[in-house]
Amino acid sequence: MRLLEERIQKDGIVREGNVLKVDSFLNHQMDIKLFREIGKEFKRLFANEEITKILTIEASGIGIACIVAEFFDVPVVFAKKSKSKNIAGAVYTSKVESFTHNKVYDVIVSKKFLTKEDKVLLIDDFLANGNALKGLIEIVKSAGAELIGAGIVIEKGFQKGGADLRAQGVHLESLAIVDSMDDVTGKINFREQ
Amino acid sequence: MRLLEERIQKDGIVREGNVLKVDSFLNHQMDIKLFREIGKEFKRLFANEEITKILTIEASGIGIACIVAEFFDVPVVFAKKSKSKNIAGAVYTSKVESFTHNKVYDVIVSKKFLTKEDKVLLIDDFLANGNALKGLIEIVKSAGAELIGAGIVIEKGFQKGGADLRAQGVHLESLAIVDSMDDVTGKINFREQ
Repeated sequence: MRLLEERIQKDGIVREGNVLKVDSFLNHQMDIKLFREIGKEFKRLFANEEITKILTIEASGIGIACIVAEFFDVPVVFAKKSKSKNIAGAVYTSKVESFTHNKVYDVIVSKKFLTKEDKVLLIDDFLANGNALKGLIEIVKSAGAELIGAGIVIEKGFQKGGADLRAQGVHLESLAIVDSMDDVTGKINFREQ
Repeated sequence: MRLLEERIQKDGIVREGNVLKVDSFLNHQMDIKLFREIGKEFKRLFANEEITKILTIEASGIGIACIVAEFFDVPVVFAKKSKSKNIAGAVYTSKVESFTHNKVYDVIVSKKFLTKEDKVLLIDDFLANGNALKGLIEIVKSAGAELIGAGIVIEKGFQKGGADLRAQGVHLESLAIVDSMDDVTGKINFREQ
């Protein structure tokens, strides 16, 4: 998605250790107009699919998922990262290792909101090692729901998550795939797609 | 907001200890069509105000804030609940006590995304004791930004947050104010407004 790649090159900040900061428009401050273009593009990419629910994970996936959901006319469920007092009753869980936060956490979805009738599109802001997405896929399987695919805004193509998931046959659409980046020049190379 | 009150009465679950669960449409599963009606209503209530930014807090405020932002045509910033590796540099912080999670956490907003030129509308799903909102207001003040007001989906009118904030002169708009609820009958009484 050209508009997104241009925005990442313009406003993204490359830091040592393959960190790409896009917090000025994607995951701290959120550019809702850009999110609408992202929603339109996911709708185009998954146009022929029947989808009943969008599943994402807190926190930075939520905003994108909600705007994307307007284009599919479905509700959004967000997986929660720890068990709070307010999630009583039966839940699906999986464990996810976060490199950003350097810890393992539980991901939880109430059984009420994901059933075997659901056809699920996963949405998230980033895909790197794919741990969050694999956790969500585990939850979709636990529910007996159908996984339609996953829509990712930025994939770090030099990490293994995308390749793993494609090898498993997941219909994965990443709007921008970063193949390499240079924290000295700030230059970002995107995969042609 | 009649539509919202009806939905809360229909799908909300009242639990002992004044807990109101609305996770089937507001803060776990999210009904995006309802969110659009909420956005429309906030736009009506703050129609005469100049707003440059919506500020909310992770996680359950984010989805609502993003849909509301479409009606105001402004970006959203969400305050983060703990310092992650990916927020480098200068941040505004305040401490917030959560009754739901029974702990005190730091709330953080990058200084880059809130400046003294900003005119800020706060958006959140719930207002009870008002701790989250007071934390956000402290951050707006630290930034030297102007607080235009706060839009809340559900206010627990029998807790002190709303009264405190109105007494401080905050332009607070709550779309539904619960004055009392009964965990035996499930009956919810809304304040006339």
